[in-house]
Amino acid sequence: VTRHTHEFELIEWIRSIVGESPRIPVGIGDDAAAIHFPRDAKCLFATDMLMEGVHFRCPPATPRQIGRKALAVNLSDMAAMAGRPLAAFVSIALPKAVGRAWAEELHRGIHQLAMEFGVTLAGGDTNSWNGPFVISVGVIGESTERGPVLRRGAQPGDWIMTTGAFGGSLSGKHLSFQPRIMEALQLHEAVSLHAMIDVSDGLASDLHHILAESGVGAVLHEKTIPISTAAHDINDGQPALWHALGDGEDFELLFTVSREEGQRLLDRPPFDVPLAHIGEIVVGAGCVLRDADGRERVLPTLGWQHEL
Amino acid sequence: VTRHTHEFELIEWIRSIVGESPRIPVGIGDDAAAIHFPRDAKCLFATDMLMEGVHFRCPPATPRQIGRKALAVNLSDMAAMAGRPLAAFVSIALPKAVGRAWAEELHRGIHQLAMEFGVTLAGGDTNSWNGPFVISVGVIGESTERGPVLRRGAQPGDWIMTTGAFGGSLSGKHLSFQPRIMEALQLHEAVSLHAMIDVSDGLASDLHHILAESGVGAVLHEKTIPISTAAHDINDGQPALWHALGDGEDFELLFTVSREEGQRLLDRPPFDVPLAHIGEIVVGAGCVLRDADGRERVLPTLGWQHEL
Repeated sequence: VTRHTHEFELIEWIRSIVGESPRIPVGIGDDAAAIHFPRDAKCLFATDMLMEGVHFRCPPATPRQIGRKALAVNLSDMAAMAGRPLAAFVSIALPKAVGRAWAEELHRGIHQLAMEFGVTLAGGDTNSWNGPFVISVGVIGESTERGPVLRRGAQPGDWIMTTGAFGGSLSGKHLSFQPRIMEALQLHEAVSLHAMIDVSDGLASDLHHILAESGVGAVLHEKTIPISTAAHDINDGQPALWHALGDGEDFELLFTVSREEGQRLLDRPPFDVPLAHIGEIVVGAGCVLRDADGRERVLPTLGWQHEL
Repeated sequence: VTRHTHEFELIEWIRSIVGESPRIPVGIGDDAAAIHFPRDAKCLFATDMLMEGVHFRCPPATPRQIGRKALAVNLSDMAAMAGRPLAAFVSIALPKAVGRAWAEELHRGIHQLAMEFGVTLAGGDTNSWNGPFVISVGVIGESTERGPVLRRGAQPGDWIMTTGAFGGSLSGKHLSFQPRIMEALQLHEAVSLHAMIDVSDGLASDLHHILAESGVGAVLHEKTIPISTAAHDINDGQPALWHALGDGEDFELLFTVSREEGQRLLDRPPFDVPLAHIGEIVVGAGCVLRDADGRERVLPTLGWQHEL
């Protein structure tokens, strides 16, 4: 397979807008990138693939929004580990029907968000074909001196907490959300985070990931779950709560901490994004949802979305 | 977008066949992988995306061959930096029409090659859709204590050298080539490698990458270029030499060293893969091809493939 001249030209244009980083002695333009890890550090790596017609439609999404989202979902994964992102790698399969301007808009969306978070585009792979648009982004980061926060550390008695609100993301937030990098680093500094994940599959589904990896169960308090305005605005006959639990693509943090540290976070929140205490980790497996009258029902792994 | 149960099941199956590595405290099953860099090391990262109908057709390629190739092209990039690969990340967009057995065969192809090179599958992203098959693989490695070998170090007077032979790869080698990891590490140990690349775009094209990045020119000696049997076997009326220069997907090493060290490599080759001295780096830009009678012609950036 021969790379075409216009692909090389696009790569040169991308290279021209990307800055340098002292941590990245080799970036775009070689067979691999090189990133310096100056201390006894953990290198973190997250990757996500987004496909046209599955993760977005274009239109209504613009190429700039798609580029932004493709990087943002990976920064959200880095946040879930309480890591600091350093470098991004962007591989694309561009439909032959889209032109150079479209590809530049895509990269402007990536570049703008990368600059906000001090991330350097350091490589990738640029291809064109007759299929739909596909973008695969990888992000390399490093853990702080407190180490990465995993899914598998939740302990019975922990509080289950969240940032932000849930549900209805597809009406807009999924293209414009702010990855919770700063919030995760501040939480990691303020308290001992036992387990953490970013909510991409859905609040119910991602909580079940923490439970399965940690070998514990959970009780959620129905009335404490933060429901977004967007979830309330959906008029499909389903309760907003069900959207909050099942929709996904919220890209908020879901984490567990000791009861004492959870209370401390609520008393002295380290940032402006709302924090909520939505339940507790218990001995056992699976999750029950408790309503205001104390009635409990089992929360399905994927929320109720498939039953409705 | 909600991940489907069968995607989670496939991920659990993949996880079950993947081993552990002391260098990778967090692998599949969290938001990001964590890789330990115990010394003041350079983290290397290479990534490539392969698309059905562009980089392979299936059939005739089997899913096992496609999985192998998707990892192998990245190991070849790691070889070009004289790096040691550690971890691989595999993101796929699976056509809904292919079943679980197909996806398992793909992963067996990846797994087998990964084990040969001591590489651990440490993450990725598994999706299905109605489009053609797409696979994006990333590989994290580390440089040796001599550092990574870049494209940009070629110096006037250097010998231009290669491993293996060139041309006609699409008749089979592109699916079965052996990434030159061990050879690159042995060369890096034996001599001072000034510049190196793996030949994926084509011998002419990839030599031009070295020349452009290094700000130098080159003279190639026509009769010394190693032409593969496969290139001789193509009956399309083009000279085998032109296939060797233009076809690409050879995944051999192309490198420059001082004349003295080049001669030493020819006198005492550090491995069995054939080494060839095909030309010299000169002051200037671009590349000329010199025939047995001393006649010179300019070698186009992409070889002659587009003019024929």
